[in-house]
Order: sequence, then structure tokens, then C-alpha cells
Amino acid sequence: VWTLSQIAQHIDGIVQGDELYEIASVATLQNAQNKQLSFLSNKKYRKYLAETGAGVVIVSRDMAPDVPMHAIIVDDPYIAYAKAARLLNPEKARNAGIHPSASVVSDSTIHPTAYIGPQVVIGAGVTIAENVMIGPACVILDNVSIGEDSRLIANITLCDNVRIGKRAIIHPGVVIGADGFGIANDHGKWIHVPQIGSVQIGDDVDVGANTTIDRGAIDDTIIANGVKLDNQIQVGHNVEIGENTVIAGCVGIAGSTIIGKNCIIGGGVGIGGHLELTDSVMLTGMTMVTKSIKQAGSYSSGIPAEETHHWHKNVIRYRQMDKLAERVKQLEDLKKK
Amino acid sequence: VWTLSQIAQHIDGIVQGDELYEIASVATLQNAQNKQLSFLSNKKYRKYLAETGAGVVIVSRDMAPDVPMHAIIVDDPYIAYAKAARLLNPEKARNAGIHPSASVVSDSTIHPTAYIGPQVVIGAGVTIAENVMIGPACVILDNVSIGEDSRLIANITLCDNVRIGKRAIIHPGVVIGADGFGIANDHGKWIHVPQIGSVQIGDDVDVGANTTIDRGAIDDTIIANGVKLDNQIQVGHNVEIGENTVIAGCVGIAGSTIIGKNCIIGGGVGIGGHLELTDSVMLTGMTMVTKSIKQAGSYSSGIPAEETHHWHKNVIRYRQMDKLAERVKQLEDLKKK
Amino acid sequence: VWTLSQIAQHIDGIVQGDELYEIASVATLQNAQNKQLSFLSNKKYRKYLAETGAGVVIVSRDMAPDVPMHAIIVDDPYIAYAKAARLLNPEKARNAGIHPSASVVSDSTIHPTAYIGPQVVIGAGVTIAENVMIGPACVILDNVSIGEDSRLIANITLCDNVRIGKRAIIHPGVVIGADGFGIANDHGKWIHVPQIGSVQIGDDVDVGANTTIDRGAIDDTIIANGVKLDNQIQVGHNVEIGENTVIAGCVGIAGSTIIGKNCIIGGGVGIGGHLELTDSVMLTGMTMVTKSIKQAGSYSSGIPAEETHHWHKNVIRYRQMDKLAERVKQLEDLKKK
Repeated sequence: VWTLSQIAQHIDGIVQGDELYEIASVATLQNAQNKQLSFLSNKKYRKYLAETGAGVVIVSRDMAPDVPMHAIIVDDPYIAYAKAARLLNPEKARNAGIHPSASVVSDSTIHPTAYIGPQVVIGAGVTIAENVMIGPACVILDNVSIGEDSRLIANITLCDNVRIGKRAIIHPGVVIGADGFGIANDHGKWIHVPQIGSVQIGDDVDVGANTTIDRGAIDDTIIANGVKLDNQIQVGHNVEIGENTVIAGCVGIAGSTIIGKNCIIGGGVGIGGHLELTDSVMLTGMTMVTKSIKQAGSYSSGIPAEETHHWHKNVIRYRQMDKLAERVKQLEDLKKK
Repeated sequence: VWTLSQIAQHIDGIVQGDELYEIASVATLQNAQNKQLSFLSNKKYRKYLAETGAGVVIVSRDMAPDVPMHAIIVDDPYIAYAKAARLLNPEKARNAGIHPSASVVSDSTIHPTAYIGPQVVIGAGVTIAENVMIGPACVILDNVSIGEDSRLIANITLCDNVRIGKRAIIHPGVVIGADGFGIANDHGKWIHVPQIGSVQIGDDVDVGANTTIDRGAIDDTIIANGVKLDNQIQVGHNVEIGENTVIAGCVGIAGSTIIGKNCIIGGGVGIGGHLELTDSVMLTGMTMVTKSIKQAGSYSSGIPAEETHHWHKNVIRYRQMDKLAERVKQLEDLKKK
Repeated sequence: VWTLSQIAQHIDGIVQGDELYEIASVATLQNAQNKQLSFLSNKKYRKYLAETGAGVVIVSRDMAPDVPMHAIIVDDPYIAYAKAARLLNPEKARNAGIHPSASVVSDSTIHPTAYIGPQVVIGAGVTIAENVMIGPACVILDNVSIGEDSRLIANITLCDNVRIGKRAIIHPGVVIGADGFGIANDHGKWIHVPQIGSVQIGDDVDVGANTTIDRGAIDDTIIANGVKLDNQIQVGHNVEIGENTVIAGCVGIAGSTIIGKNCIIGGGVGIGGHLELTDSVMLTGMTMVTKSIKQAGSYSSGIPAEETHHWHKNVIRYRQMDKLAERVKQLEDLKKK
């Protein structure tokens, strides 16, 4: 339990109301009860302010008069909420040490403050830094290194030589450092090209459930500091992703493509191989990128849903579009005569 | 081995032929031999009836005269086949109990009829009901509850506080309850927003291999009774999926979207965040949904394949479509003069 | 360390330079140093030849005069590089035997030369051939068979009765033999149709990380010899993929579709169910296939990215395309009068 003033201090806000009011947990405006903390960030939800049962609401200055109970006034309510929610829901404390069911090769260097969970496998030459958490059933192959305060939740595979920075959060089912899709056609039969590079992941990177990041063919695949990856993303070999770029779920990035800093990539996007996307590119959901993008800005493709019987008609017309354009050209030419 | 009359009784059908004929297994019409049971559901395959080697065929009444050997006459041959196939291929019996290689925190409540396989990890405060099967290498984190008769095949991760109903079938590689993609931009740097909600899964839900269902940001992600999910689906935080909705593989559903009951969603569909889809919506494969759908019915988007050299031409024309439409408008205006 | 002449002999090439020159590793032309071997395959990178620090470059005959240091002259530099890279980076040797933390049912047949890693689970009736490597935390369910020299890297699930050929390479997170998406609607409620078939995988098949291949409904799902699958591919039940076909990441193939030999399928492609694709079909990235393809050749669909504000305009026009086509028709009809 935290008092209003303790929370306000933590999130750099100003109390409106009773400084000693006590809060036990967070909730949405719609569902909050009187010992709960909520927030208003998107003004679309302003209507819920009047009826909320929340004991405290985090708001921006202009919304403060509308809060029925106590308020904490901040510059950015969503950021402030995120910090308050972490305060009220701290990471679970875990005892340091290696679970007896884990299988650890003896030449690995595991900091005594690290936690190694049940059924974990740790290969040879692995380095695990201070306060790292390796959750249950993770497999850490040879010569991997993991920086301090990183957390691997469970059931994650890191292949040989992968390097993870500090404060990473890696979710279950993630595979980092599997072979890239390197194949060569030897007189009609495909042979596997050895994938000798590895993967370097910077600090403060999140990797969502079941995302895969392939090792480089010769040089490394590189994920820079502050990159946030959602679930089920496929990152091909030798891709480079710049600082603070965020990528939503189900995106596929083919090999050797370089993505700049501060990009925002929507769900289901596909990006071809050997391309370059400059900094601050935004791609809306399901966009297909087949050429490099040299100008910052927002790009899109893909056709939104319509009723299936209309879609049928439009799809047929689409197939005839080149001819349609020529028919228009002919009409124009006639006109000119 | 079952007799024809035993099978007919089980599937509520009428025997045409020898009631004591014995059947050992099922097969397709094309490949069946004389001790095998087959079925005709799709009339497109009617031609195979004449030549089938099957000892028994499940058919509707109007097809019965064409069956060369024995038949079982039913209302819905596919449903009847499904039930007969289960009769002839029962779930493997498993001894109850906890495999000695499993790692189970002692305060968990595991029903004595449940099976806990090798290398399984079970955290603190977990509740596992009657006849549950937890297959090899599953990771069940803290405070999870799993309802009776549910089966987790292998290598599945259920994160803290996830609740699974009765009779679930969950396939390998599934991750339920990983953090949603909650990030907030704090002066140019993305920070992780704690994901405090969980996931509630109803009764009779199937979840296909490598599908991921994220935990809610504050409230829970909800999958209602009878939902069937195929492989490699991504369900974002706070999504709600209504009863008896079925979703094919590779679908992505962004956060906070609400999908109604009895929907049928094809493979590779992408659905944006914060949308509402009403009941009985059908989406054909690879459709992109960017707006709420308020009317039941079938919706589509996406362009089917054509030869690449035509595609090139049409894509160029597509890019000029806005201009083309204006050129047509000009021609029409000239006409009017 | 290998000498130039040893490497040349291994890759069937001709030495240009000092036969006794020693090479320790491979590198890209841009990053290589003097004890390193590089290659020039794509003539686009010819400019790097002059400045490379590589001690040896593998090239075709016509490029040999431009190599500043030593060269190995071959017919196909990429294939030759692949073979040299394997020579210089051999698979890690592993001791044969079963790790003490593995859980193996005693009636399985495991060749004494096979390696079974830590935390592995092996079910009943499994057959594992010579020199097979089963990496950490793999789950091999009942009656699976795995052919000689196959390597399962880690954290892979093979379900009951799956058969894997020789020399397979299977990457982490792969699930082979989970139930296909077989459901039938029984008076408004979906029931699970037992999936009785299995999966047969030929020789020399690669399967990328987190790819899923479902077991057949009645007959088997079949992956022929020499097929190469990238990451996060979904292969539905009863799909058949012909010899030497290669499939890039994030492809979804719906049930009962048959794909020919020597096809090349780009990333993010979606292929509907019950279709047939003939041999030597190429599909570019993100193509949607809704009909069978009977002619070899290259096929495409999908719209490449454009600036979002243009996209908005074109999408609106696309929706009106059927009407636009009719307006053009009317103008043409007027003309004819």
C-alpha cells in the first residue's frame, strides 16, 4: 500500500486531494474501485471520468477539475501511469542461485546474484551477469553472454555466441541465433550455407513471445539499444535494426535489410531483403515494402476489407486495370483530335 | 475392433448391411481397405464411392444406394465420422501422477487423477483439476489454474495467473500470458508499461501450435467457450473473442479488439487494434480489417496472384489510380458540355 | 588452419597465388583481413575487390585478374564458398550418449553413436539412427523415427509417429505433428475431428525456427526430399511439398494443398487450401494464392508501399473501381454512336 503523496513523488506529479489516501492497486477508469489508481491519457475516454469509482486518477492539468476523487497531476499521464503501475506491481523477487534441476556446464560464469530456474540448460563458456533471471526451461547454448538485469521469462532458446545486453526482457518461445535461411543451388539441389555470424542485441531491448531472430551468415545480425519487438516477428540474417525502433506483431524482415532509428512498424508488415529504411519511417499495418525508403514519413499499402461480393467485382477490375488505363488513354486521344 | 452396429449406435446412424461386420480403423475413400471405415461428406468426392475398397462408408441417406459395401446412414456424415474416428482412436490412456523429472513447487494443488509429464515445471499456487494432462516440458508459472479434462500436449508456456477452462486442447509451442506490447514514449525512449492483467480461457477451447495470447494490460484478455484457434495466431492484449468463433492459422489481432460470437476468420487475416467485430462475421483469407464491422456477413480484401509481368503493370496503374479517376471525370465533364 | 591448396582441392578450384598460404576463417569482402577467405558471387559487389583486405578470394575465372591477393578460381563462387565455409567451420563434435538429465522411455531404440542432450524427453517406441543429434530440451513423443545424421538443435517438439529422414536440420521452436485444424460444426458448436494421420519428412530437409507442420487428418502430411523451409512457416494438415522446393519465412499453407517440385516461395505468401501448384512455380513475397496454378512461372500479388496520404486516395479509388470501369464503358459507348 502506498499513499497518494508517495506515488506522486515517484511519478513527479502534484497531488490534488488527500496526501495520505492509500492505494493498493491500479485499474481502468471503467472498473476501478475506491482503493485503486487509474489514469486518463486518451481524451476519448474523458466521459468515463465522471462515473469512475477510482480513488485516484492520474491526469494532465486541464483534466484535473473533472476528477471526482483525488488526482495526481502530471505532464504525461500514460508515462506516469506506467511508472506508478510498476511501483504498485514490482517484479517478483527471486532468490539468487541455480535450481537443482538445471543442467549447467561447469565452465560457465554465472554471477552469484543471478537466478537460474528449473529445467534450464546452460552450455559451455556462457557468461551471465548480475541480477539476470533465466526462467524455467530456457536453453542457453555455448558462449552466449547476457548482460545485467536481463530477464528471460521461460522456454527461450539462445543459440551459440548470441550476445544480449542489459535490462532485456525476453518472452517465452523466442529463438535467437538460429541459422539464417542461407541456401545455394548446386546443380538443382539446394545446399545449406553455413551461418557463421551471430546476433548482437543491445541494452533495453524487449523481444515478444515466439519472435525469431536469425544469426548472421558471416557478419552479425544487430538489434540496437532500446528496440522493442512484439510477438511472432521474424528477423532474417544480417538484418540491422536501429535504436528505439518499435515493431508490432507478425512482421517479417528478410535478410540483410537495414532499418533506421526511431521507426514505428505496424503489425503484419513484410519487408524485403537487402533494403535500407532510413530513420523515423512509419509503416502502417500489413504494408509490403519492396524498395528502400530514403525519406522519413509514413508509408502504407494493402487494401482494407469490404463486403466479399464487392471485393469480387473490384478484384476482377483490378486485374483489368492496365487495359482500363489504356482505354482511358484512347478516349483522351480521340478527344484531342 | 468394433462391429458395424456398435459404431452405428455410437454415431446415431442406421446400418445398411452386416451388423456384425468388424472395423479396425478409418481411412479416406481413396485409400481404404476392407476392414476400414470411410465417409462421404463433400459430394465432390462422390466419384470415389464406386471404386472405394472401404468395408463401411458413412453417408447421408441419398448416397446410401451407391455404397458398394456396408454403409451407416446418418444426417451429417462429417460429424458422424468425427465421432467414429474418436471411438476407433481413443486418446492414449496415461497413468496419473507426477513424473519424477518434473519440478513442482510444493504448494500447488494437483488433482491425483492428473498426469504431469517429464521435465514439466509447475510454479507456486497452481491449481490443476481432475484428469488434466500436462505433457512433457510444459512450463506452468505461478497461480495458473487449469480446468478438468484439459490436455496440454507438450512444450507449452502458461505465464502467471492464466486461467484455462475445461476440456481445452493446447498444442506445443503455445505461449499464453506473455506481456502485451505495452510501451510508452518517454521523451524519445520507449519504456515498458507493466502488463498487470491476465488471460481467461473458457471451456472447450483449442489452441494451435505456436499460437500466442498476450496477457491484458490492466483487465484480462478473454477467450470465450468453444473458441477454436489454429496455429501461429497472435492475440494481442485485452482482445476478447466471443463464443464458438474459429480462427485459422497465421492471423494477427491487435490489442483491445473485440470479436463477436460465431465468427469464422480465414488464414493470414490481420485485424487492427481497438475495433469491434459483431457476431457472425466471416473474413476470407489475408483480409485486412482496419475498421469495426457492425453487420454480420462476409468481408474480404487482398489481391489474388497473377503472373508477375501482369502484376507489375497493374501495380503501376494502381499507383496512378487516383489520377486515372480524375482523367475519367474530365472526359465525362467534356461530354456534358 | 588450412592451406590455399587444401581449400582449393576441397572446393574443386584452381589456385592463383601461393599454394601454401594459410587461412583460418571466412569473412565478407568488406571486413576480411589477410588470414581470411572471402568470395565474390554477386558482381554488384565487384567494387569491393580492389579494397578488400582478404588474403584469398574465391571468384569465377573472369574476375580472377582483379583479385589483389590470392584467389581460388571456380565455376560457382557461392557454392564453393559454402563448401569452404563448412570446411573451416565444421559442426561441433559431440560425444555420443544420453545426457543424465534426459528422460528416455526404455523401449526406445537409440543408436549408440547418437547424442541425446540435457533435459530431452523421448517417448515410447522411438527410433533414433546413427549420428543423430537431439539437442537440449527437445521433446520426441511416441513412435517417432529420426534418420541418420539428422540434427535437432534444441527445444523442438515432434509429436507421435512423426518420421524424419536423413540429414535433416531442425531449428529451435519447431513443432512437427501437432493436430491439424480439423473442426466440424455440430448444431452450432465446433467439435474437434481426430487427426489420425502423421507427418513424413524426407531426406536433406531443413526446417527453420518456430515453423509448424501439422499431422494429417487421415493420410499423412508429406515433405519430400531436399525441401528447405525458413522460419515461422505454417504447413496445414495433408499438405504435400515436392522435392527441392524452398519456402521463405512467414508463409502459410492451408490444408490439403499440393505444391510441386523445385518451387521457390517468397516470404509472407499465403496459399489457400485444397489447391495444386505445379512444379517450378515461383511466388514473390506476400502473394495470395486462391486458385491452383497449372503453369510453371512467376506469380505475384500485393501492393507495394507508397506514402500514406497517396495510399488513402488510391484505396478509396480502388473501392470505386467497378464503378469507374463502368463509367469508362459509358464514355466508350457514347463515342461509338
